[in-house]
Amino acid sequence: MTYVNLAGEATPLPDPDAEAVVRANDRAHVFHSWSAQGALAPLPVAGGLGASFWDYSGKSYLDFGSQLVNLNLGHQHPDLIASLHRQADRLATIQPAMANDVRSELARLLVEVVGEPFAKVFFTNAGADANEYAVRMARHSTGRNKVLSTYRSYHGGMGTPIGLTGDPRRWANEAAANGVVHFFGPYPYRSPFHSDSPEQETARALEHLESVIVLEGANTIAAIILETIVGTNGILVPPPGYLAGVRELCDKYGIVYIADEVMAGFGRTGEWFAFQGFDVQPDLVTFAKGVNSGYVPLGGVIISAKIAEFFNDKVFYGGLTYSGHPLACALGVTTFEVFRRDHILEHVRDLSERVIAPRLDGWLETHPSIGEVRGRGLFWAIELVKDRDTREPLVPFNPTAAQNAPMAAFAAACKADGVWPFTHYNRTHIAPPLVIAEDELNRGLDVIDEALTITDQAIGA
Amino acid sequence: MTYVNLAGEATPLPDPDAEAVVRANDRAHVFHSWSAQGALAPLPVAGGLGASFWDYSGKSYLDFGSQLVNLNLGHQHPDLIASLHRQADRLATIQPAMANDVRSELARLLVEVVGEPFAKVFFTNAGADANEYAVRMARHSTGRNKVLSTYRSYHGGMGTPIGLTGDPRRWANEAAANGVVHFFGPYPYRSPFHSDSPEQETARALEHLESVIVLEGANTIAAIILETIVGTNGILVPPPGYLAGVRELCDKYGIVYIADEVMAGFGRTGEWFAFQGFDVQPDLVTFAKGVNSGYVPLGGVIISAKIAEFFNDKVFYGGLTYSGHPLACALGVTTFEVFRRDHILEHVRDLSERVIAPRLDGWLETHPSIGEVRGRGLFWAIELVKDRDTREPLVPFNPTAAQNAPMAAFAAACKADGVWPFTHYNRTHIAPPLVIAEDELNRGLDVIDEALTITDQAIGA
Repeated sequence: MTYVNLAGEATPLPDPDAEAVVRANDRAHVFHSWSAQGALAPLPVAGGLGASFWDYSGKSYLDFGSQLVNLNLGHQHPDLIASLHRQADRLATIQPAMANDVRSELARLLVEVVGEPFAKVFFTNAGADANEYAVRMARHSTGRNKVLSTYRSYHGGMGTPIGLTGDPRRWANEAAANGVVHFFGPYPYRSPFHSDSPEQETARALEHLESVIVLEGANTIAAIILETIVGTNGILVPPPGYLAGVRELCDKYGIVYIADEVMAGFGRTGEWFAFQGFDVQPDLVTFAKGVNSGYVPLGGVIISAKIAEFFNDKVFYGGLTYSGHPLACALGVTTFEVFRRDHILEHVRDLSERVIAPRLDGWLETHPSIGEVRGRGLFWAIELVKDRDTREPLVPFNPTAAQNAPMAAFAAACKADGVWPFTHYNRTHIAPPLVIAEDELNRGLDVIDEALTITDQAIGA
Repeated sequence: MTYVNLAGEATPLPDPDAEAVVRANDRAHVFHSWSAQGALAPLPVAGGLGASFWDYSGKSYLDFGSQLVNLNLGHQHPDLIASLHRQADRLATIQPAMANDVRSELARLLVEVVGEPFAKVFFTNAGADANEYAVRMARHSTGRNKVLSTYRSYHGGMGTPIGLTGDPRRWANEAAANGVVHFFGPYPYRSPFHSDSPEQETARALEHLESVIVLEGANTIAAIILETIVGTNGILVPPPGYLAGVRELCDKYGIVYIADEVMAGFGRTGEWFAFQGFDVQPDLVTFAKGVNSGYVPLGGVIISAKIAEFFNDKVFYGGLTYSGHPLACALGVTTFEVFRRDHILEHVRDLSERVIAPRLDGWLETHPSIGEVRGRGLFWAIELVKDRDTREPLVPFNPTAAQNAPMAAFAAACKADGVWPFTHYNRTHIAPPLVIAEDELNRGLDVIDEALTITDQAIGA
C-alpha cells in the first residue's frame, strides 16, 4: 500500500499500528520543550517531503513554519539526504582539534559569502550556543561585560542567551541575565517612541539607544546583539537607516555589533544573510537553522578579521565537543551548492513579491481582524487585532490558554485543512520551506485566508 | 591505490593533494576551541575505523582518547553508519513539539536502563546544555537558586555550565557563575582533607560538604552536581561511601542530586551509567557523548518521576530547536542494540581487569615518574610526578607551554609511534573506544610504556 505525496510520488503508507507505540512512549517518557507536560498531545509525524509532512493516517500538512523556521530546504531534500549518505560513509565525526575537509570548506564558503571584513568561523551545535560564544568573544576582546539586547527578541535557551532574550521565556531564568540590559528596538506599528513615520521611528529609536548606552556607561558595554529582522517575536523589519545607525553608535563607543541571523539567515529574507539587505556590516554574525536545514544540529559565529586576530595570541576560553561536526558541515556545503544551482534566493524574492505581498495586502481589505502585514522574503507576519483603530491585539502578550482561544481556533482550522501554521501570540507567520512551489504556496494561503474568517468572527466582524 | 587499515581491510588512500586544501582553509577560516589561534597546527584527518584514525599520508593512530571521550563505539561503526543511512532515508529531522518514533523509543530505552525512580528524558544537543537544563529543572522545582559543584570538574562550556566548572576554563567566564558555589570533592592521592585512607577521605569530604551546605544556607541550595567519576580533571573515582553520603545529605536538606554522566556514561566504566557501580540513585542524570558516540550531536537529562511530575501543570521554561533530533536518536537506539548484542559492558570490564589494571600496576615498578594509576572500565589515569614522596606534579595545574614541555614530549613520542594520547596537565588518560580489541589495546599500551621513559628521564630517573 502506498501514499501519494504532494509531489505525486508514491511512498509507503506508514504502519498505523506504529502510531500507538510512538504516542504512548512519547507521553510516558519524552519531556518536551517550553511546555507544561500534562496536557500535551504531540502529533506523531510519519514522514515528510519538500514543503509537507504527514501523520500516520496519511494526512498531509503544508509546513508553513518550516518546523521551527529551520527547514529552509524542506523535508528530506534529495541532495541533502545524498550528502548525508556520502559523508556518513566517509567520516561521521572528528574532534574540533583536528582539521577536516568539509569543516574547512564550509568555513571558507561562509566567509566568502559575507565577504570583507570577515575571516573565520567558530562552529557550534545550534543558535543558542552561537550567541553564547559570540557574546563571549565580544566580552573578552573588549574587556567589558555588559550586553545590550532588545525587548521582543529571542536569542536562545541557554544561560547567556536566555538572559539576552526579551520575551517571557526569560522571566523564569532571570538569574542568568548577568550583565544584560534590555532596550527598545523600533516597531513602527506599535511604536515605543510615539512616532508617526518610519523615519521618525528610526531617529527616535537611535536616540533611545544612545541614551541607554550613555546612561549605562559606554565603556562598560561589550556588545549590542540584534536579530536583523526580529523573528518569533514579530517579523519586525527595521525601518530604513536603523541598522546603519546602530553601526555608527557601535563605532562611536567601541561596541561590538552582533547580528543574530539564526532565523533570518540562509535565504529566509531573499538574501544569504538578512543584514546584506540593509547595507550594514556587523562584527560578528551568528547562524544556525538554515545553514543545513537542521538535518544535523549546527550553528556558529562568523568572525571579523579584527576580532579573530585578537585571539591569535590569546586563548579563546570557549569550546565544545562537536564544534565543526563533519556530518553537519557536509550538509552545509551541500546547502550552498543547492542554493546556487537552484537559484533559491531568486525564487524566494519572486514568491515574496509576486505572490505573498499582493495577496496579503488584499487581505487587509477583506479581513477586519488584520491590523498589519509585514515581512520580506518568505518571512511574513500577519498581526491580528480586536480593533484597527486602537490596535488592541487579538490576544495579549504571553496569553493564558483561555485568552489564546481565538488564535487556537484559527490554528485548528488551518490544521484541519492541511496547513501547519506558525502562530505566536496575536500573529501568524508565513515561513514555509524556501523550496515551496507557487501552487503549494497559493494553496496554503487559501487555507489561511479561509481560517481568518474565524478571527474576523471573534471580533464580531 | 589502497590503504590497508588495522582491520586488514582495503580502503582507498586519501588524496594527498587534498590535504593542502584542508590545511589551508582550516588555518585561514576555522576558529578552534579553547586555543590561541595563531600557533595551531591541527592534523588533517582523512578517515577512521574502529579504534583508529589516519591522516592523509596514511599514517594511522590508535585513538586512546576516543576523540574527546565520546567515540565509545569507535570510528565508523558499521551498525551506526547503517542506522544513519536508514534514518536519513526515513526522516532526518522534525521539531520537538511533534512525536517521533525513534525519539520515543530512545527515551523508553534510557528510562528502562536506569530503572526506578526515573520516568522521562529531555533531549538536548550535547552535555553542556544537558547540565544547563538539569540545573534549571532543579532550580525551578525547588524554588532555590544556588548550585554546588566541585573544584576539579568540567560540566560544559555554556553560561551556566561554565560557571559550574571547576577548572581554568571557568576563570575567563566568572560572570556566568551566578549562584554557583564550589566545594572540594574527595581526591585520596592529593587529599584536600589531610586524610590517610579512603575511608577517612570519604568521612572528611562529607563533613566538608555538609559544612558548606550549612554555611551557604541549605534552603538556598537547589542542586549538587557531580561527575560520578571526574573525567578530564583526573579520573577521580569516589572512595567507598562518598556518593551514598552525598545522597543522604541531599535527602536531609531537600537538595536535588544531579549526576553528570556525560563522559562516564554509556559503558565507559563498564556500567551503562557510572553511578550504577556505586549503589546510589541521583534525581537527574545528564548524558551525551557515548549515547551515540557523537555521530550526530545529542545529549539529555533523565528525570526522576517526582521532578517530571512537578512540570505536569507548570511550564518548563527551557527548550531548543533540535531537542530529540531523529537522526541523533536513531543512532542512540542502535547504540543500545550494539551494546547488548556485542556485550560491550562485559568486554570493557574484561579488558580493564585482565589487561589494563595489571599492566598499569606493573608500571609503578618500572616508571619512577608515575605517582598513581587509577580508574575503572576503559577510563584510567596515569598521574605523573617529579617525586613520589612529595607527589609534586610533573607539570603544574594549568601549565604554561614551557612548563608543559615534558608532557608535550611524551605526547609527541606517542604520536610518532601511532598512538593519539589524551593528556591533561600532569596526566595521561587511557580512554580508547570501547570496541578496541585486546591486541590493539596492548599495542597502544606498549607505545605508552615506551614513551614514559621520556617522563622518567625528565625527572632525572
